Amino acid sequence: MKRFSSSIHYSSLLFVLVLALPGFAQNNPPSRVTGPPQTGAATRKFSAPPAGKKIPVAFVLSEGATMIDFAGPWEVFQDVRLEPNPDSPSPFQLYTVAESRDPIHTSAGMMVVPTYTFEDAPAPRVVVVPASHNGTPKMEEWLRRMDKQSDVVMSVCTGVYWLIDAGLLDGKKYTTNHNAYGRFQEAFPKATLAKGQRWVQSDDVIYTSAGLTSGIDLALHIVEQYYDHEIAMKTVKYMEYESPRWTN
Amino acid sequence: MKRFSSSIHYSSLLFVLVLALPGFAQNNPPSRVTGPPQTGAATRKFSAPPAGKKIPVAFVLSEGATMIDFAGPWEVFQDVRLEPNPDSPSPFQLYTVAESRDPIHTSAGMMVVPTYTFEDAPAPRVVVVPASHNGTPKMEEWLRRMDKQSDVVMSVCTGVYWLIDAGLLDGKKYTTNHNAYGRFQEAFPKATLAKGQRWVQSDDVIYTSAGLTSGIDLALHIVEQYYDHEIAMKTVKYMEYESPRWTN
Repeated sequence: MKRFSSSIHYSSLLFVLVLALPGFAQNNPPSRVTGPPQTGAATRKFSAPPAGKKIPVAFVLSEGATMIDFAGPWEVFQDVRLEPNPDSPSPFQLYTVAESRDPIHTSAGMMVVPTYTFEDAPAPRVVVVPASHNGTPKMEEWLRRMDKQSDVVMSVCTGVYWLIDAGLLDGKKYTTNHNAYGRFQEAFPKATLAKGQRWVQSDDVIYTSAGLTSGIDLALHIVEQYYDHEIAMKTVKYMEYESPRWTN
Repeated sequence: MKRFSSSIHYSSLLFVLVLALPGFAQNNPPSRVTGPPQTGAATRKFSAPPAGKKIPVAFVLSEGATMIDFAGPWEVFQDVRLEPNPDSPSPFQLYTVAESRDPIHTSAGMMVVPTYTFEDAPAPRVVVVPASHNGTPKMEEWLRRMDKQSDVVMSVCTGVYWLIDAGLLDGKKYTTNHNAYGRFQEAFPKATLAKGQRWVQSDDVIYTSAGLTSGIDLALHIVEQYYDHEIAMKTVKYMEYESPRWTN
């Protein structure tokens, strides 16, 4: 534990430096749609549960969690409808997980009370990791366990930092917020940054999305992989989500 | 108060009926972009504060508040940057307001602790009203006060219900979630529903947006009205928000 704690300490400090250094915003945003839209080609990858059973989705929170990073995927997963009735339930079951049940201040100060801790959270099939300030060794240990036992671990924005720091992306490609390209590339040579992508599949389990709103698109892509493109497009329409990636 | 309480009771019941009736989803979604994009033509309407001073934005929460309805505008207002440095602060100051400080279960069950109550909330210049289940007479009374003293009262999705029920939209036009068109039109003959609009300005103070993600666009439009189109577009890029309405 000692080794790990000091690794966390070092790299958290590094992360703060990464964000604080001038020139952090040196990169231009990626072009708005790179290549063909990354939708419509998905084949079902995960088994959907039988009717009435749910797909548990855990949202990993710590202090400073960026609002849209968790709220975007949250809205997507809650809005999936398998039946025409908009009041029918989503097949996804959502909950928050954190170090403790103490209230967390999200970005700009909304107070959220986590439903579960890393000790008592039900086993999720999908894990969502938003950008945040205060990850802990316990959180990273939990992420490493989830990497082995869940279908999907998806990061949004600089939430990917916690996956890199947990050692889950060594030798793999990933993406992140365009403002963080330069410094992530410099700080994390073991992982390969893919620029200008809305999301990147890093391996069988890990998916990483670009900045902020991109988590909405990655979550829709995960919906495609449990169901199909049609169910994802129904979710897009339900949400009145306007995007050049999700048009038919 | 008695008259008002019973009015709330009646119309809350009506609202539940509106949502529960079969055929609630009888309308098709509006075409994705209706007419010319509603951006780029905004002229500054509100005075921006001097440097260092903030524009207070109150998010009105009650049980069942729809996640993206408040989280979308929350992210927009927190991401406004007047300087090139992405770490510079937003000129908007965000907080939540509710009936009490008891935790609220948002849509799909995230627990949020309101920062202020209707008794002690600082005076906002912007008020955001998401869809929710349990508005109260006190909330509507507060909304009527804010309609007189703040720059903007904006509803997202069926959050407009609370403005209609508070009597603030009689004789005015508004919009809402496309799934709610038929029943809103039937239930609220005193206000005029504008279909297929991403947002509608109802009067000098009140703006109403369509469903769910549309709150992001309306919030960006409000940013335009405090600053200008360029600042709104910088926010769009910061958020990596891909939308046919916000391209240059």
